[in-house]
Amino acid sequence: MRNLVSMKELSVAQIHALLNQAQAFRDGTASTLKNKYMVSNLFFEPSTRTKMSFEVAERKLNLEIIPFDAGFSSTLKGETLYDTVKVLESIGIDILVIRHEQNNYFEELIDRVKPIIINGGDGTGNHPTQSLLDIYTIWEEFGTLQDKVITIVGDIGHSRVARSNADALTRLGAKVRFVCPPGWQGEFEAFNNFDEALEDSDVLMLLRVQHERHDGKTAFSKEQYHQMYGLTLERERKMKKNAIIMHPAPFNRDVEIASELVECDRSRIFKQMENGVYVRMAIIEMILKGRE
Amino acid sequence: MRNLVSMKELSVAQIHALLNQAQAFRDGTASTLKNKYMVSNLFFEPSTRTKMSFEVAERKLNLEIIPFDAGFSSTLKGETLYDTVKVLESIGIDILVIRHEQNNYFEELIDRVKPIIINGGDGTGNHPTQSLLDIYTIWEEFGTLQDKVITIVGDIGHSRVARSNADALTRLGAKVRFVCPPGWQGEFEAFNNFDEALEDSDVLMLLRVQHERHDGKTAFSKEQYHQMYGLTLERERKMKKNAIIMHPAPFNRDVEIASELVECDRSRIFKQMENGVYVRMAIIEMILKGRE
Amino acid sequence: MRNLVSMKELSVAQIHALLNQAQAFRDGTASTLKNKYMVSNLFFEPSTRTKMSFEVAERKLNLEIIPFDAGFSSTLKGETLYDTVKVLESIGIDILVIRHEQNNYFEELIDRVKPIIINGGDGTGNHPTQSLLDIYTIWEEFGTLQDKVITIVGDIGHSRVARSNADALTRLGAKVRFVCPPGWQGEFEAFNNFDEALEDSDVLMLLRVQHERHDGKTAFSKEQYHQMYGLTLERERKMKKNAIIMHPAPFNRDVEIASELVECDRSRIFKQMENGVYVRMAIIEMILKGRE
Repeated sequence: MRNLVSMKELSVAQIHALLNQAQAFRDGTASTLKNKYMVSNLFFEPSTRTKMSFEVAERKLNLEIIPFDAGFSSTLKGETLYDTVKVLESIGIDILVIRHEQNNYFEELIDRVKPIIINGGDGTGNHPTQSLLDIYTIWEEFGTLQDKVITIVGDIGHSRVARSNADALTRLGAKVRFVCPPGWQGEFEAFNNFDEALEDSDVLMLLRVQHERHDGKTAFSKEQYHQMYGLTLERERKMKKNAIIMHPAPFNRDVEIASELVECDRSRIFKQMENGVYVRMAIIEMILKGRE
Repeated sequence: MRNLVSMKELSVAQIHALLNQAQAFRDGTASTLKNKYMVSNLFFEPSTRTKMSFEVAERKLNLEIIPFDAGFSSTLKGETLYDTVKVLESIGIDILVIRHEQNNYFEELIDRVKPIIINGGDGTGNHPTQSLLDIYTIWEEFGTLQDKVITIVGDIGHSRVARSNADALTRLGAKVRFVCPPGWQGEFEAFNNFDEALEDSDVLMLLRVQHERHDGKTAFSKEQYHQMYGLTLERERKMKKNAIIMHPAPFNRDVEIASELVECDRSRIFKQMENGVYVRMAIIEMILKGRE
Repeated sequence: MRNLVSMKELSVAQIHALLNQAQAFRDGTASTLKNKYMVSNLFFEPSTRTKMSFEVAERKLNLEIIPFDAGFSSTLKGETLYDTVKVLESIGIDILVIRHEQNNYFEELIDRVKPIIINGGDGTGNHPTQSLLDIYTIWEEFGTLQDKVITIVGDIGHSRVARSNADALTRLGAKVRFVCPPGWQGEFEAFNNFDEALEDSDVLMLLRVQHERHDGKTAFSKEQYHQMYGLTLERERKMKKNAIIMHPAPFNRDVEIASELVECDRSRIFKQMENGVYVRMAIIEMILKGRE
């Protein structure tokens, strides 16, 4: 594997290898990379957690991080993404983690530039490392994804997470369902009854309401969303024994999830972030080792 | 000690231990920390000097610094400070240095999150590492704070520095006085006559006029402030032999202090910044060692 | 040599020493610096490539980089550049790389502050490391600069690159000519006929049209500029065998250069950026070694 831009490129066997390697990193195994590498994280869209999670993973792999300030870059002077990436190639950057608002931004880069491209999220398209950390969190919990029932709730039409997860989770044997307000389903087929879907789910995956993508067009208030599609205290009580709650974050308290449930026993929300570091270490190491 | 949020938490004995450790670092002693730690500096208000001073201290202690970009973070997406800190805890950050515009922002964090919290300034509240570097600078100069007369001049009602220093300096045996324009005294009792206060002071501590906090409401021009409450060339000549000038910076030349005096023999202004690095090393090391 | 603020300070012998050292770094020689140094890159004007190129060079020399955020600094609170630099001196920074919009900003710093100053570009004045990387690229190509014909085309009056290069290239034995739209020549004497100048040039150095400096006053459109002063496909065909194309970047595709030519056989545009890292390593090491 040369780059990681979407989950489609990863076979089931590769996903399992990554899960095992993430687990090894979590258990304290050190990286066995032989060479020194330089990495740069190009975040053209704001993100605390994903950028910092990559930074921690990169430090733990002993990579040299060269900071890139998107708000202060030559793209201000009208430079194309391709030209920016060629500059970074020229000065010796080996790996680029890129988040960009444009879907499939990576198509103009793949096979045309030397640095490894790791997709940190493209528009409403893909977010493969988020998908891998979700998979790892479920696998760590249940030991397998086979036959697990996973219900993804919310703004699925705008969600990179839903898109990246749908295919991969299914290939790993899980049963994936979607629940969302009418008109928010995008290309997915939505399940009508949230409460019915909830009762036999092993995993409830809540998605962030992206207020910034629905500018004023949302038909309901935050309170209404919470009552209809949020995880209320009442709904949580109906969940199966051992079922878990996930959210890619940042979450809106009392919108997607009741504030009291964010850190409840079922919640794996902060665990997901913890796992993100190990999964990112595993993917970066796998690609670099393929090159060594 | 688990965190450092205000000077009140530090006993006189602890302050003396910190002064000695800062001196040891200044003399070239290396840190004896055993483990690797990750630190992140969360500056929600602009600050060149404090942030960079912490960064230098952290590098000298061999900490790994994970950059945090406040202007680019998920707080833009409405995330609470608590949730941001929980994210950083999840990805493995051990120490957080936080500057925030809200007084006592740390109350929602202490005892609820795992990372060590070091307060880099909260609103008009506390700024304990600034206070420690002021104390260290006076102690280094005179060998003691006992009976030293310290006059703090300026915008004391809005000043974290005045607030953090008042209590600690007094506990260390110093005599602290305040001079300020009428109405600027906040909770402090002000001394009326600047020139009289000046004559027997060992330390003259000038505070920055915070133009941004007095929007248009200041009753006098910069020139008037300088004449009434600034250190003019004439006033400097009236100072005691061996008395020193301090300022937490950034200073406004020819407002709080005549430009010619910024680097005069009495001035410890740049010395304070130099000392800030050693004091910050001492406090971070002390807290981490308590944990090891 | 104590600082590097303009090409004028470098003798021909020093330039040759730098070229040889840059070549050694390119060939894999490691730095022989003995001490640990701290560096900070103060970019008050946006620049991806120059800032990142310095960062890579600094990492390869094992310097500790303390980040400086110009948009977030105390200059917002009205601090002078001199005072900012004194702060950085106080906290222990050894080397400052500065880009600033004001011509000759460094005059208020040289001989007044301890840190080494390396000019990363001042207003429309100097850009010595860009000049050195241009010289290195030509030297690497032809083995010498003696008698090479170098044509610099474009916005020469506003160009730090033209200004820094004009003198140094001439001292190294090259023949330098300028081509530009009427009124854009600044202090230089311009050559009238681009096509004639092109035919016997060994090096064609294209400069970026700085739209931001010509606000609305440009007499021609991008297409017109391209036809009159840009490197079109037709013009490229008239170039001498072995002649090369250079551009300091960022470039405007289809303005200064036809998009198809950016990566053509003659183009050394990305090579220049690659060389920039080695040249910057050479200059920083030379100055630091002079101090050791």
